[in-house]
Amino acid sequence: MKAAVWHARRDIRVHDVPDPPPPPAGQVKVEIAWCGICGTDLHEYVGGPVYIPAARPHPLTGVQAPVVLGHEAAGRVVEIGPGVTRVKPGDRVALCPIIGCRECSWCREDLMGLCPKSAYLGSSWHGGAFSRSVNVYDFTCYNLPPEVSDEAGALVEPFAATLRAVRQAKVQAGESVAVVGAGPIGLLAVQAARIAGAGMLIAVEPLAGRRERALQCGATAAIDPTVGDAVQALGDLTNGAGADVVIECGGVSATGLLAGRLARRRGRVVIMGVHEHPNPVDFTDIVFGEKTLLGSMGGYGVFDEAIAMVAGGDLRTDPLITGRIALEDIVRGGFDALLQEKERHAKILVAPA
Amino acid sequence: MKAAVWHARRDIRVHDVPDPPPPPAGQVKVEIAWCGICGTDLHEYVGGPVYIPAARPHPLTGVQAPVVLGHEAAGRVVEIGPGVTRVKPGDRVALCPIIGCRECSWCREDLMGLCPKSAYLGSSWHGGAFSRSVNVYDFTCYNLPPEVSDEAGALVEPFAATLRAVRQAKVQAGESVAVVGAGPIGLLAVQAARIAGAGMLIAVEPLAGRRERALQCGATAAIDPTVGDAVQALGDLTNGAGADVVIECGGVSATGLLAGRLARRRGRVVIMGVHEHPNPVDFTDIVFGEKTLLGSMGGYGVFDEAIAMVAGGDLRTDPLITGRIALEDIVRGGFDALLQEKERHAKILVAPA
Repeated sequence: MKAAVWHARRDIRVHDVPDPPPPPAGQVKVEIAWCGICGTDLHEYVGGPVYIPAARPHPLTGVQAPVVLGHEAAGRVVEIGPGVTRVKPGDRVALCPIIGCRECSWCREDLMGLCPKSAYLGSSWHGGAFSRSVNVYDFTCYNLPPEVSDEAGALVEPFAATLRAVRQAKVQAGESVAVVGAGPIGLLAVQAARIAGAGMLIAVEPLAGRRERALQCGATAAIDPTVGDAVQALGDLTNGAGADVVIECGGVSATGLLAGRLARRRGRVVIMGVHEHPNPVDFTDIVFGEKTLLGSMGGYGVFDEAIAMVAGGDLRTDPLITGRIALEDIVRGGFDALLQEKERHAKILVAPA
Repeated sequence: MKAAVWHARRDIRVHDVPDPPPPPAGQVKVEIAWCGICGTDLHEYVGGPVYIPAARPHPLTGVQAPVVLGHEAAGRVVEIGPGVTRVKPGDRVALCPIIGCRECSWCREDLMGLCPKSAYLGSSWHGGAFSRSVNVYDFTCYNLPPEVSDEAGALVEPFAATLRAVRQAKVQAGESVAVVGAGPIGLLAVQAARIAGAGMLIAVEPLAGRRERALQCGATAAIDPTVGDAVQALGDLTNGAGADVVIECGGVSATGLLAGRLARRRGRVVIMGVHEHPNPVDFTDIVFGEKTLLGSMGGYGVFDEAIAMVAGGDLRTDPLITGRIALEDIVRGGFDALLQEKERHAKILVAPA
């Protein structure tokens, strides 16, 4: 079968790889309907390896580059391995990309994302979702009801990640929330915060096209941080206070620093951005404002809730999905398009077969 | 009267200033017994102005440099202004240096440290405690019982700050706590964590003399971060996990970065250090470990608790107080000694009269 394979930075190729074998015990074979291109995939493309095990095999799976990419996926179970009862052939599912060791204290507490050995579908697992099919553990499969389309199913994983972040930050009804960066994750974070009952909901984003999408996703205001002082602009909207909660979805030096400063005193800042290296924080501001900065890792633990929200019509997918392409076109029409036409694109979905 | 006055960076002078007038309404005149030299004072000396209003008057008090320094003080009330009932002449008191506007929402919630206009004794107030006497609001005075000596009384303010930090981080009995930097605040943080029931209690400090003091204060181990990898060394002590709580008392780039990395997954990092500019954080580590980083501001709100602990004999003052000097000697025997003999000194107390 054809697959999109990461060989090295700026070297992703679509070529033949072996079909997955019949799924081993506890695993199922999923035929992929759609898989979204994630910001993490872009980081691997232009700045990787970030999470891909390139220098040595992954400690849990033994996987080492080259690897098949793709982890924001929905598809259909086509075959089940011995002992699988959670799903059956024909089930439509969204996939959680995190695979813990299932032995450590974190895995035993259902905090698989914290497992120090955890592997990830599409980076350190035996395959990825930018291919016709992939074998995965049954516990990574979440059934999709008929109300959730295959397309929307491919948004469940990144949406669940933002839902987890909103819950980590304990967003309460009526609180003001600022989202820094309105790329795909930022647009989903705006929606997760909207669903959580945020009052004022402000996107901070330099690109006009993305600010417009944020408003379509439910932001009540949008600030261009390249014009004037964003902290001042947010202060003007919040009676001088700043935001109760800030969700950082930028992953660059300026967004990390700005996120802290946008929070009100005693405010919470949740980091979602993929930072390729340590970036600065204004510690004095954190101390004097007794602010809290915390990380949120992936969407595991809230997949069922995310799926129920999508099924209930809470997720606005129109402002999000800006492209649907075939696997063969993933580099030019996917990665390069996302990098070169940031204003035009948010989420591009890939149909592997 | 004589006072230690900050005129500019590296320009602190002892000279005559006017005696305080009879205290106005709500204020009392306190004759200072001892006042400790704080790390913040050192920052103002070598890198200031940090908090001192030099360029323009302070918004609440109108104070502008030159200013009298000194805010870790204990003394005796000698005169009270109209309307004061909280203390009476003759009372021995420790002083809280934070003066809020008493009008904003933070002040109304007893969170004076978060008041955006708050002023500080010894930096933006009408006087400081490196002088024979100073007028302060009665609500900044906390009575000292006979069990608390004047010397120990001067330690109440920095000790309360570490107690507040330990409470902000919600240190629980039996948790592992790492303290990064074993200067005076680090040594007090070790003690606050010990009193909070910390299990493993590890000081991370490059100077041997300070590591020794940390052990005397109750640390169960001490790590030299300049020899090998401190994260690895702490991992060896904590079954590979890292510390449940890290208290950052360093205030430099390396300590901010290290503090985050020393925390276990889901661990909490509380920042106490005075960082003169933004410093880096390993955001990826914060995200993958779902770690929390938070600031703690001053010791207000826990002065009575801190005084009770000192009265009960919980605070070991011997490893802390390394010098007692007269006001005239504050620059050479105080500031310069602290900067040049870091291994030998922790807290130096100044007797203004």
